[in-house]
Amino acid sequence: MINKNDIADKFEQLQQHICKVLDNADGKAQFEMNPWTKDIGRGISGVMQGGAYIEKAAVNFSKVSGSYSKQMAQLLGENANEYTATGVSSILHPVNVHVPIIHMNVRYFELDNGTAWFGGGIDLTPHYIIKEDASWFHQQIKQVCDNAHPDYYNRFKPWADDYFYLPHREETRGVGGIFFDRIKPGEELNIEQLVNFCIKLGELYPQIYAELIRRHGDKPVNEAEKQWQRLRRGRYVEFNLVHDRGTKFGLVSGGNTEAILLSMPPEASWEYMHQPAEGSKEAETQSLLKKDIDWLNILKC
Amino acid sequence: MINKNDIADKFEQLQQHICKVLDNADGKAQFEMNPWTKDIGRGISGVMQGGAYIEKAAVNFSKVSGSYSKQMAQLLGENANEYTATGVSSILHPVNVHVPIIHMNVRYFELDNGTAWFGGGIDLTPHYIIKEDASWFHQQIKQVCDNAHPDYYNRFKPWADDYFYLPHREETRGVGGIFFDRIKPGEELNIEQLVNFCIKLGELYPQIYAELIRRHGDKPVNEAEKQWQRLRRGRYVEFNLVHDRGTKFGLVSGGNTEAILLSMPPEASWEYMHQPAEGSKEAETQSLLKKDIDWLNILKC
Repeated sequence: MINKNDIADKFEQLQQHICKVLDNADGKAQFEMNPWTKDIGRGISGVMQGGAYIEKAAVNFSKVSGSYSKQMAQLLGENANEYTATGVSSILHPVNVHVPIIHMNVRYFELDNGTAWFGGGIDLTPHYIIKEDASWFHQQIKQVCDNAHPDYYNRFKPWADDYFYLPHREETRGVGGIFFDRIKPGEELNIEQLVNFCIKLGELYPQIYAELIRRHGDKPVNEAEKQWQRLRRGRYVEFNLVHDRGTKFGLVSGGNTEAILLSMPPEASWEYMHQPAEGSKEAETQSLLKKDIDWLNILKC
Repeated sequence: MINKNDIADKFEQLQQHICKVLDNADGKAQFEMNPWTKDIGRGISGVMQGGAYIEKAAVNFSKVSGSYSKQMAQLLGENANEYTATGVSSILHPVNVHVPIIHMNVRYFELDNGTAWFGGGIDLTPHYIIKEDASWFHQQIKQVCDNAHPDYYNRFKPWADDYFYLPHREETRGVGGIFFDRIKPGEELNIEQLVNFCIKLGELYPQIYAELIRRHGDKPVNEAEKQWQRLRRGRYVEFNLVHDRGTKFGLVSGGNTEAILLSMPPEASWEYMHQPAEGSKEAETQSLLKKDIDWLNILKC
């Protein structure tokens, strides 16, 4: 049976695969791979900056283990002495405002009491929502979900709506996607099937992005659109620093700050009481930042 | 004896005073005063944008009250049914990188069990630390502290070092200042004396800024300095969204999001693994972002 070391190996290969596909999609910049080791484990921060289409990208792999702290026990509600965690997480910030921001994460968590689970997700944050793209994006994800389990998409899609939500703005981060956590081997799928699901999701990720770059990467952009991009990037900062559990956990638990904050956009902006003009495309996007939108069928509405 | 309504009135007058002095110091833009009311109380958001010297400024006054929640009880360790809170808080982001970011807050908190206290502080965040300014700034604050109580500066200065600290960056937010909380009437000073201390501190604030604008507001700025300003503003965002208790409390407790996030800089930037060149003035500033620096006597070192 596959064990945690095998899973970490597969995740490390996934990281390499993602970087290779994105290198090709960008065509100009390449990922720089920065390995790091700490007392708790090791990782590789894959970083791309200043690409033709990708302004800033992070593809991080890590495998850490250590003693299971009281804090973790409180958070997770399990009794154990040691934990191991391995995963790949990634965020891409595009140059062109017509290409969305995208995020993907897959992770495996194991305790020495025999408990283990998978978590992860993928979500899309367009600066300007294009219904065709959003619908296509959800179809792609649904296919990977359906190949793993018939209920996954329907369970994980609303989970993403809830997770990628900014209560203080009363808006979703973008058009969502899927989010899942604490999916234990043996519940519906065995450990091999779950690893496979994570890998397929991870492989879909750069493929989706290459397609979105192909569709929109060369569109003209004006100054007003650029300012809108900076404002939407500001929201992304708010989500990551105020709400995202991974970022918060990483920063307070002494993780690799530079690797964690690779999720920050290269530039962000805040304007007091900014309101898009009525009837503008910015206002249309804002009106679509809602939970429970059936993106699969949005074009039929 | 002065009561909570009198204190709120004094704080509201303080807000007006601060805005007037800053209007004069800027000379171009003026504060726009936006009153708001909610079920929990009322406030006025004072906002300046696009000034000659002040790029973005917030001076907020509020007076709120309500039922003392379980969450508050856990946080504050007091038993009560109702609370009232009133205060003024402000952040100024300058146009010119050679003028610092500055922050000030004074607040009064009262419970219906008879317990009440004051809190607040003032701290300076230069993009480029100038020792003369930092020393002068601390002297000004010390004077206000000394006029209130001989121990205040020595107690409140290290408190600011601890509070305005980014653990994940291992750096202070700037050159500090003072921070205090849970200062109860009757312990050393009576309620009138404490209100007076807060008002004097609040009045010092725009006076300090007018002087810093006079000293540095017209200095030439190049593109590299502007990028450094955006990076330092990024740190300010990190502090406010990850660590600042006021911001976090405000956002999760359903406060006025736009008023709370007035503290965000107009623009911010993040660069992976940014390191100032050895011997540069950026590197010097970075080396001074430490706790326990005796800013009062820094010029004698």
